[in-house]
Amino acid sequence: MRKFLIASHGSFAGGLLSSLELIAGKIDNIFTIEAYSDGSKSIEEQIEKVLLQIDTADELIIFTDLMGGSVTNQILRSALRENVYIISGVNLPLLLEIVLADTDTPVAEVIETGITNSKNQIVFVNKLIPSND
Amino acid sequence: MRKFLIASHGSFAGGLLSSLELIAGKIDNIFTIEAYSDGSKSIEEQIEKVLLQIDTADELIIFTDLMGGSVTNQILRSALRENVYIISGVNLPLLLEIVLADTDTPVAEVIETGITNSKNQIVFVNKLIPSND
Repeated sequence: MRKFLIASHGSFAGGLLSSLELIAGKIDNIFTIEAYSDGSKSIEEQIEKVLLQIDTADELIIFTDLMGGSVTNQILRSALRENVYIISGVNLPLLLEIVLADTDTPVAEVIETGITNSKNQIVFVNKLIPSND
Repeated sequence: MRKFLIASHGSFAGGLLSSLELIAGKIDNIFTIEAYSDGSKSIEEQIEKVLLQIDTADELIIFTDLMGGSVTNQILRSALRENVYIISGVNLPLLLEIVLADTDTPVAEVIETGITNSKNQIVFVNKLIPSND
């Protein structure tokens, strides 16, 4: 089974999930980690709790907020193993495309296509609007 | 003055702001719109409330969640005017770079550079890790 984890500083992860579910409906098999939120457990403890719900046959795609950030770094230290795939710099188009992808498509292909398309969704919208000049 | 607005479906906008402020500290002049959240006002009303706090001499950079989504479309209809700049597909690297940019740098340059760099921050992290093969 393909499972998902969004991991971030603060409440970004849960916020992104709320946005995803408003657009796509309830998603199963998706977890969130919100580091440094008030009262939250350590990142390590939160990762461990998620990994307990992942079977060795599962694929786990992890979306993180920021390359080089402490959350991504801790994910790399604690969660990287076979069948775990980590993507940094998540935005909503990336999450939507990968979570909604056909699970028969190989995971690496889903990720590569999702990354390419999500980059193209970061758009300076003003430039698309015809000028009145 | 340069001001900022994050607009999203659900609580993504506030979550992203929490992440930004955990990393960069308290940010002034930044607003959020969370559409379709329980009990929230309409997107139009929320935009109007933000625009009341923007002077004509201010620059307003608006980050939205999704190109073609209803939030971005409503922002385009209600907020696009002189000195308003809209970027869709926001991720944390984009927000960090643009919000923290030197305000002496022209806004279009800040945005173009930020978009280029944020695309490069969407990374399939596994591919950066040396293989043991």
